[in-house]
Amino acid sequence: MNMVTLIQKKKDGQELSREEIQWIIDGYVAGEIPDYQVSALLMAIYFQGLSKEETVELTQAMRYSGDTIDLSPINGIKVDKHSTGGVGDKTTLVVAPLASACGVPIAKMSGRGLGFTGGTVDKMESIPGFRTALEPSEFLNQVNEIGMAVIGQTAHITPADKKLYALRDVTATVDNFGLIASSIMSKKLAAGSDAIVLDVKVGDGAFMENPEDAVTLASLMVEIGNSAGRRTVAAITEMGQPLGKAVGNSLEVIEAIETLKGRGPADITELALKLSGIMVYLGGKAASPEEGMEKTRAALEDGSGLTQLRRFIGAQGGNPAVVDDYSLFPQHTVEKELRAESSGYVSRIEARCIGLASQHTGAGRATKEDAVDLSAGVYVHKKVGDAVEAGDMLATFYGNDEGKVEAAVREASKAFVIGSQPVEAPKLIKEIIGL
Amino acid sequence: MNMVTLIQKKKDGQELSREEIQWIIDGYVAGEIPDYQVSALLMAIYFQGLSKEETVELTQAMRYSGDTIDLSPINGIKVDKHSTGGVGDKTTLVVAPLASACGVPIAKMSGRGLGFTGGTVDKMESIPGFRTALEPSEFLNQVNEIGMAVIGQTAHITPADKKLYALRDVTATVDNFGLIASSIMSKKLAAGSDAIVLDVKVGDGAFMENPEDAVTLASLMVEIGNSAGRRTVAAITEMGQPLGKAVGNSLEVIEAIETLKGRGPADITELALKLSGIMVYLGGKAASPEEGMEKTRAALEDGSGLTQLRRFIGAQGGNPAVVDDYSLFPQHTVEKELRAESSGYVSRIEARCIGLASQHTGAGRATKEDAVDLSAGVYVHKKVGDAVEAGDMLATFYGNDEGKVEAAVREASKAFVIGSQPVEAPKLIKEIIGL
Repeated sequence: MNMVTLIQKKKDGQELSREEIQWIIDGYVAGEIPDYQVSALLMAIYFQGLSKEETVELTQAMRYSGDTIDLSPINGIKVDKHSTGGVGDKTTLVVAPLASACGVPIAKMSGRGLGFTGGTVDKMESIPGFRTALEPSEFLNQVNEIGMAVIGQTAHITPADKKLYALRDVTATVDNFGLIASSIMSKKLAAGSDAIVLDVKVGDGAFMENPEDAVTLASLMVEIGNSAGRRTVAAITEMGQPLGKAVGNSLEVIEAIETLKGRGPADITELALKLSGIMVYLGGKAASPEEGMEKTRAALEDGSGLTQLRRFIGAQGGNPAVVDDYSLFPQHTVEKELRAESSGYVSRIEARCIGLASQHTGAGRATKEDAVDLSAGVYVHKKVGDAVEAGDMLATFYGNDEGKVEAAVREASKAFVIGSQPVEAPKLIKEIIGL
Repeated sequence: MNMVTLIQKKKDGQELSREEIQWIIDGYVAGEIPDYQVSALLMAIYFQGLSKEETVELTQAMRYSGDTIDLSPINGIKVDKHSTGGVGDKTTLVVAPLASACGVPIAKMSGRGLGFTGGTVDKMESIPGFRTALEPSEFLNQVNEIGMAVIGQTAHITPADKKLYALRDVTATVDNFGLIASSIMSKKLAAGSDAIVLDVKVGDGAFMENPEDAVTLASLMVEIGNSAGRRTVAAITEMGQPLGKAVGNSLEVIEAIETLKGRGPADITELALKLSGIMVYLGGKAASPEEGMEKTRAALEDGSGLTQLRRFIGAQGGNPAVVDDYSLFPQHTVEKELRAESSGYVSRIEARCIGLASQHTGAGRATKEDAVDLSAGVYVHKKVGDAVEAGDMLATFYGNDEGKVEAAVREASKAFVIGSQPVEAPKLIKEIIGL
């Protein structure tokens, strides 16, 4: 095979075969096919698209480009959960304890945050002592013993995706459904769970800004998962305003704990119950998603989800006392406020703006190498639909650098839109695909 | 400026500004913008196209990316001639002596052959002693003294084009009008002549295979040349069969000499008179292209074109006696024939096939590093429209390697199509643009 011929083929709108896709991925990972040929192919793919068959083959080629995780030593139907990323998205930290409290084994790999979105690994690292790197045997044993484990991505999973993603990022070829879907699904399939629940965020704080695109992407990922023999379900959920009220690492862990205590914001509580309910159903512990949700609601109400979180923190070396004493989290030294200039109703909170503000406080990264201030972030007091009086607190900003926190306030001041008419809160779960 | 943003801009179908194009070319030549970003941009250009303004700006940015030749020390209006490349195209070797015999100074840079097309520099090097590398001062002085000089491309001319072309070649991004036109015209403008005659070949032995494409390309190049203040004219000419009868380095030089002696094939003679006539007109030595052609016809008939070739060969260190004694050229040791299997009329000779056959004899290169057998090549005895009897000689193959010459015969046997009906020879000059 010849890379120039294959680029030409895609450029001319023809389909690449399984063997051709395999050859490209193998050659790229081996360093035999240079970046400049792959980036030309990626741009041709942007214009000519990938068929479903090509997307499935690309996913499989990337899935097997490095190590894959064998979860078969874990008893039961393992269910994974993945979010396409948003602002204030601490769902995993609520969903995983609830589903595992209902008997579904959770053996999950999570990522770090970049830009205006956060990552579960950073959040967990705000718990003193918590380890996100476990040996494979530790990981498997922990799930068998306590029902759940969440670790950071290992270096050897889907190297093809890592290399391709880095290249797409610097060649303006990120925004293609087939490339996005295969990137996400190759990692999910390599991670070894038997079923997958995808949370596809839509809105200005998400990668997908309009609902049609989110549905297209979600349907494609469900199709890829199912065609690989993994039962896959996707929820399209609101990311026009931040999820919950806390944005920033320790702030979000605290909000997740509060949610498991039954005192969380309505939206994150609703979303966590729904998604964990589907996980319980897919994990064979309920006859329907509705029954699954009844079980996770019970696990929330009887405190077994919270108990599960405590166990999980302890098993991974963290101090479980944080669940009851938030002063054990890293502390901020700077705190600033943003207050409403007029009275009315919050008609909009731009999630991206709040995400960027949180990044400015020190809670996020501009580049992969940046360090993160685990105590920093933004707490949003009012959500869309809430009534406000002039002078009411809209948001509080935390951190350890006066200038950075100031910058965050400036950034966030653009985020809130206050109108004179009452506004309904946006629908949280827009559609569920694959059930 | 940021390369990712500029790739995105072109991907979205927007126009790049002069400053942006300049920044890209400067950064690429300086090694600050990597190949993988430029190849993504090239593919986006393939799909979204370049406007005329962008094409002009790209041409100018590449033109000034390295040295430019200052021909002002040469008296008179310097006229350049460029062919987009074909099989058996020895036109420069006839046109340059004729135009300079009519008083038009020719200060020309030529290229080497690659693939199935030949290059003037290789052809000239088949003349014993001939030097294609002259010092700049030698080059200028020679034109002032004898009226013409032809040299190989120096390393410092349009490095941006060299780098871009090499990248396009391995990323399937060669076939875009703006990229092709800017590549050719940047070199022509950097080479310093005051007027340019372009010979745009069309047919299966040329880069452009259909007439509409050739017209589009030619019009674009004429526009670029004129907008840079250089009077530019383009002829669209036949390359469905080889030009003349000789294909291969010394074989073509001999045919050029024969043509200047008035004994050349009809097509190359007609084309050379026409193009050199236009050059004489553009060079201010005739009031019209027609008058120019009368003058070049006279230069052919009175032998002054041949005299000019002799002087030129001598001035560049070659042995002028080759003009009268062809045995002074490098000699072949292997000779094979291809004869007609049936009687009828030659209805087609695939030029690309003959070009590849010539390459197989050793006359051409597969890669830039290959050495060339200057004595090797193909001599075509019958042209399209000629009547043949079974057993007639169709072509003779020359070289120094039995196996290679055999391979050439096999390749060329597919080139000749003999039909039962008389066929008219194809029209040689299809259109002239810019006069």
